Amino acid sequence: MQDLTVETVTDAVLDQMATTKDARLREVMASLVRHMHDFARDVRLTPDEWLTAIGFLTKVGQACTPARQEFILLADVLGLSALVNLMHDREATELGTTSSLLGPFYRDDAPEVPIGGSILADAKRAELLLYGRVTDADGRGIPGAFIQLWQTNAEGWYDLQVDGGANMDMRGNVHCDAEGRFHVRTVRPLGYTIPMDGPVGDLVHRQGRHGCRPAHVHFLIGAPGYRELVTALYFSDDPHIDSDTVFGVSAPLVIAPVANDPDAPVQGMPAVRYDFTLARATGSGSNRVGADPKHILAAE
Amino acid sequence: MQDLTVETVTDAVLDQMATTKDARLREVMASLVRHMHDFARDVRLTPDEWLTAIGFLTKVGQACTPARQEFILLADVLGLSALVNLMHDREATELGTTSSLLGPFYRDDAPEVPIGGSILADAKRAELLLYGRVTDADGRGIPGAFIQLWQTNAEGWYDLQVDGGANMDMRGNVHCDAEGRFHVRTVRPLGYTIPMDGPVGDLVHRQGRHGCRPAHVHFLIGAPGYRELVTALYFSDDPHIDSDTVFGVSAPLVIAPVANDPDAPVQGMPAVRYDFTLARATGSGSNRVGADPKHILAAE
Repeated sequence: MQDLTVETVTDAVLDQMATTKDARLREVMASLVRHMHDFARDVRLTPDEWLTAIGFLTKVGQACTPARQEFILLADVLGLSALVNLMHDREATELGTTSSLLGPFYRDDAPEVPIGGSILADAKRAELLLYGRVTDADGRGIPGAFIQLWQTNAEGWYDLQVDGGANMDMRGNVHCDAEGRFHVRTVRPLGYTIPMDGPVGDLVHRQGRHGCRPAHVHFLIGAPGYRELVTALYFSDDPHIDSDTVFGVSAPLVIAPVANDPDAPVQGMPAVRYDFTLARATGSGSNRVGADPKHILAAE
Repeated sequence: MQDLTVETVTDAVLDQMATTKDARLREVMASLVRHMHDFARDVRLTPDEWLTAIGFLTKVGQACTPARQEFILLADVLGLSALVNLMHDREATELGTTSSLLGPFYRDDAPEVPIGGSILADAKRAELLLYGRVTDADGRGIPGAFIQLWQTNAEGWYDLQVDGGANMDMRGNVHCDAEGRFHVRTVRPLGYTIPMDGPVGDLVHRQGRHGCRPAHVHFLIGAPGYRELVTALYFSDDPHIDSDTVFGVSAPLVIAPVANDPDAPVQGMPAVRYDFTLARATGSGSNRVGADPKHILAAE
């Protein structure tokens, strides 16, 4: 009989998991167990703390609904999502636009919006123009590139957070023209705190963090043969531009609206121009990172 | 503006968490973030894998019910629960009985059972006697020590797994006599697979593990002034005595019923004698590790 000790139990677990057929699953789980056990040993995790962690993770799972993904939020506030994005960018063979967090408010059933249209349910509210091009690494426009964008309203709320997500608003799917150009109308989003009424909000509060994200617009951009790009543009004058609770801001993604931009395809409102670059897809599997909570909840 | 990289993002997270007032929370979370980021870097976790992990943890949380604690099960199959127990034992100033896993089937509303009584709902089924003493580290009986015990039936099921947990069975709370002695009647439990119909079962299946636990009886033992003991006794002839899926077996906890034990307080059925030793409580906070899933689900 193997008699387990604080030191030998880790190898006993690795031995028992060595029968895993899928080589990648075996590698990931072995590393996870090693690091998790090292963590527990480093802090001398107590039974009470173990139980607190079990209770916390249970609450995080049970806070997930078709309109809310609390585990993504947890990964975000611990910087894990940002780290995965940064590694994903570095792995690309070509330099594309820097990626940023998908966040928990993505929906895959956003409406089609024509070029020049508005992503607002009430188009008359539009007061800001977003325009630019989607190009390859050599600066050539990608015809028909697909752009999905979503954002908060001027009060800092996503549609999913209002009326239980009953109404679609501030989201749209746009297809670029033959030169890879796009322009859409919207409002200027407001920065916001992450949802603070759940277990992740409790943690952030206990950590003395403000819980704020600077104002931004999310983009998910794709075209056949290119790595899908998940990113966001951040407004430079937001007070939390340097202290994003989920570590999504990076310098190349910071923008400032221009009051009278002579190049803008529509005049009479402030405009933000941004050109996105897609790197070519490599053979290393899907780059799909879409995370509609409904899909995750239903996932096999 | 701080521009985050694969290497600097970890320190950015630690900086933002440095405002945590509770020193222990700050220490634990800092270590967790360091180890979790190291894990992600070591395996070069991809966005797809990150999303798979989010989906898996969400399913684990949503599989938790008042009758089932899937996160405890996850901690168990990854050896984390065993590691926490082993560290807890080592930390004691006095040598008590080796601890073992609480498991996900603890209930705190078990019925009182008198000494000599049966923990079975149908007392006539009793066919095995469990007896012994609860003593301090010097071998002195602890008067009135409290023992809670629970186990599977002869088919390998806990009461919580039958009819949605509607019927209490194979559990009891016993108070030792003035010399710390106890004896109760029960059936011999059967070993079993952990619940394989949830996300943790899927993982264990994909890892090519049998998922079995050797037959055992759980004990939770306490007395004022002593460290609470959570342990279990394992039957030596079980085919999985050397390959417990949750790493709970250790040599001092392995037992074998004796057919005709002249010392047993009741004759006519096989008997297991086991003397438990409680270490004195130290000042380092509660030793309570009770984990009724209902409490965890309802916990603030």
